[in-house]
Amino acid sequence: MKFTLQVEDPHTKARAGYIETDHGVIQTPIFMPVGTAGTVKAVHQRELKEDVKAQIILGNTYHLYLRPGLDIIEKAGGLHAFNGWDRPILTDSGGYQVYSLAGTGRKINEEGVVFKSHIDGGVHTFTPENVMDIQRTIGADIIMAFDECTPYPCDFTYARKSMEMTHRWLLRCCERFDNTTPLYGHSQTLFPIVQGSVYKDLRKQSAEFIASCDREGNAIGGLSVGEPAEIMYELTEVVCDILPKSKPRYLMGVGTPANILECIALGVDMFDCVMPTRNARNGMIFTTEGIINIRNEKWKDDMSPIDAGLGGYVSTFYSKAYLRHLVKSGEMLGAQIASIHNLTFYLWLVNTAREKIIDGTFLSWKQEMEKKLIQRL
Amino acid sequence: MKFTLQVEDPHTKARAGYIETDHGVIQTPIFMPVGTAGTVKAVHQRELKEDVKAQIILGNTYHLYLRPGLDIIEKAGGLHAFNGWDRPILTDSGGYQVYSLAGTGRKINEEGVVFKSHIDGGVHTFTPENVMDIQRTIGADIIMAFDECTPYPCDFTYARKSMEMTHRWLLRCCERFDNTTPLYGHSQTLFPIVQGSVYKDLRKQSAEFIASCDREGNAIGGLSVGEPAEIMYELTEVVCDILPKSKPRYLMGVGTPANILECIALGVDMFDCVMPTRNARNGMIFTTEGIINIRNEKWKDDMSPIDAGLGGYVSTFYSKAYLRHLVKSGEMLGAQIASIHNLTFYLWLVNTAREKIIDGTFLSWKQEMEKKLIQRL
Ligand SMILES: [Zn+2]
Ligand SMILES: [Zn+2]
Repeated sequence: MKFTLQVEDPHTKARAGYIETDHGVIQTPIFMPVGTAGTVKAVHQRELKEDVKAQIILGNTYHLYLRPGLDIIEKAGGLHAFNGWDRPILTDSGGYQVYSLAGTGRKINEEGVVFKSHIDGGVHTFTPENVMDIQRTIGADIIMAFDECTPYPCDFTYARKSMEMTHRWLLRCCERFDNTTPLYGHSQTLFPIVQGSVYKDLRKQSAEFIASCDREGNAIGGLSVGEPAEIMYELTEVVCDILPKSKPRYLMGVGTPANILECIALGVDMFDCVMPTRNARNGMIFTTEGIINIRNEKWKDDMSPIDAGLGGYVSTFYSKAYLRHLVKSGEMLGAQIASIHNLTFYLWLVNTAREKIIDGTFLSWKQEMEKKLIQRL
Repeated sequence: MKFTLQVEDPHTKARAGYIETDHGVIQTPIFMPVGTAGTVKAVHQRELKEDVKAQIILGNTYHLYLRPGLDIIEKAGGLHAFNGWDRPILTDSGGYQVYSLAGTGRKINEEGVVFKSHIDGGVHTFTPENVMDIQRTIGADIIMAFDECTPYPCDFTYARKSMEMTHRWLLRCCERFDNTTPLYGHSQTLFPIVQGSVYKDLRKQSAEFIASCDREGNAIGGLSVGEPAEIMYELTEVVCDILPKSKPRYLMGVGTPANILECIALGVDMFDCVMPTRNARNGMIFTTEGIINIRNEKWKDDMSPIDAGLGGYVSTFYSKAYLRHLVKSGEMLGAQIASIHNLTFYLWLVNTAREKIIDGTFLSWKQEMEKKLIQRL
């Protein structure tokens, strides 16, 4: 993996760059659609490429490990071969999902985490070492360190101890990663994750430790877990100012379109979130003019395209009234249309941000755009 | 509407022809995907055209009348404008759905049918006259007469009385249809429906009455409702021999791939069935080599394409193992892939039958094909 920083915005900390991987180039800032179980829900791989114009997608280690299972993924020749997505893939470490299992008998200790499958209750263990091995088998281009993602709120003592363990786990991840090789002929890279909950001191300490590990890219975890957006922005800024400029910065699990523009301005290069697809399935549509709740009565006879300004087949071919009919009727096509539309919008947003950074008009565009992004139509 | 009979098979009663409508040509024999509520479940309109190669789709009057409702369809400019499908559409009369509501307080009398909505319990009335008006508002190219679809089994006396009422309703449908005009600038045509349950005498009597009405096409209803396939074939043959050669014959709600080939050989030109899409959602895949239950353990690590012999994006891009993973995991993409594949297969089947009729090899091809069609892989 190689990151090239192309342009730094003179008015904000935004940057434009690109990441080269064995599965192709990723232009940053970028949004990565979430493909939990090896599928971006309701979206064909062809649509991800041609309509959404996704450059990289996520896979969830926890889900893929449980189903279809590593034997099948390995037999296929890795996740790229299994699901047919031949562009870059990033896998999370399973940490976030495992911690979401709180209250189901999950146990965390220095060695790792013992948890029960949400599918069949089977007992499994994740450790920094086996999570590296699992991600070798899945074969993503970018893999994530095994960390503890603390909840919000989280008391200082727990946050500090957890951060320290995440750092010790990182050293174990790096060692295992560096002593193993990719299985499918393409290279993989490991991103460490900054933790530290909402405590600025811890975040600084963690960012410095993560930076000192000198991996090819760095991530910020444990944000967007319920804390106010202002706190998320403040901590993202603190961390970005410490993480090296020469490497991509990935803010995990963020967020709304407005969150993304704000964090691009703070120096973040990579984003992922289930929001565009999950909210799509509930009828929440992000458009270039604002947010639409398509279940609302007001759209029932609105025959205008979903988003003429966005362009593309899905957003211009189908009307708001038709989409509302589908969503209200529980028709799968409603979720399909809304998912493709929202993802197309997210990709349009980061690509446009990139263009504006390059031509030097990012700040003014962002200020105009943010007004629309939060507007309820 | 204009039907042209091109070729009659010398060895069977199969025919090849084409139907011209204001929304384009339909080559027969044809299979029509069912788009119940204005959407073929899980399939984009673009995929219906480019992958499935559908030439005409169905809409259900009952469903569309209840949701989105006639006011919205009329405001859109008809169903074609509402859902964006610019090729021919056929709507059923709602008769079949209304009779499926047996036991929910539905009442049939000479005037029509009073029924309760499955959505909100609201009370509605369908009559031969208002069903014509409703289908004028929906605006399909081919609309169906309002009939009573008798269940199986059905005693002779009920079947005879019901058939006679269906005939009287037909006269009322024709009168209303002939005294009204299309709303959206394209022409519409009305197909009457042969009934008579499983009684050969009634079927003959009904076919003669329907033929005497001299509409542009004719339909056979009330079959494939639970009776043995042999009875269905026998009655279809009796009826096809009476219905004029010069007009298309539509066998409603049929059926399996093997049923379709058999009935093409008896002189049927048009088919519809929910089977390819409904069974797809349950993991039943029709292929050029036989039937696959994709949930079966044996496919879990089969990395071969779903159906290399069928061709096309969906059937060759995705593997059996990946499709199985999606279906087992309850992922929407599984239903999407399986639905497109099965519909593509059904369209391939009728198009290939057409080619074979034209080149004179239909019978031998059918005999070979039928062995594969019923084979469980
Ligand atoms: Zn999120
Ligand atoms: Zn059927």
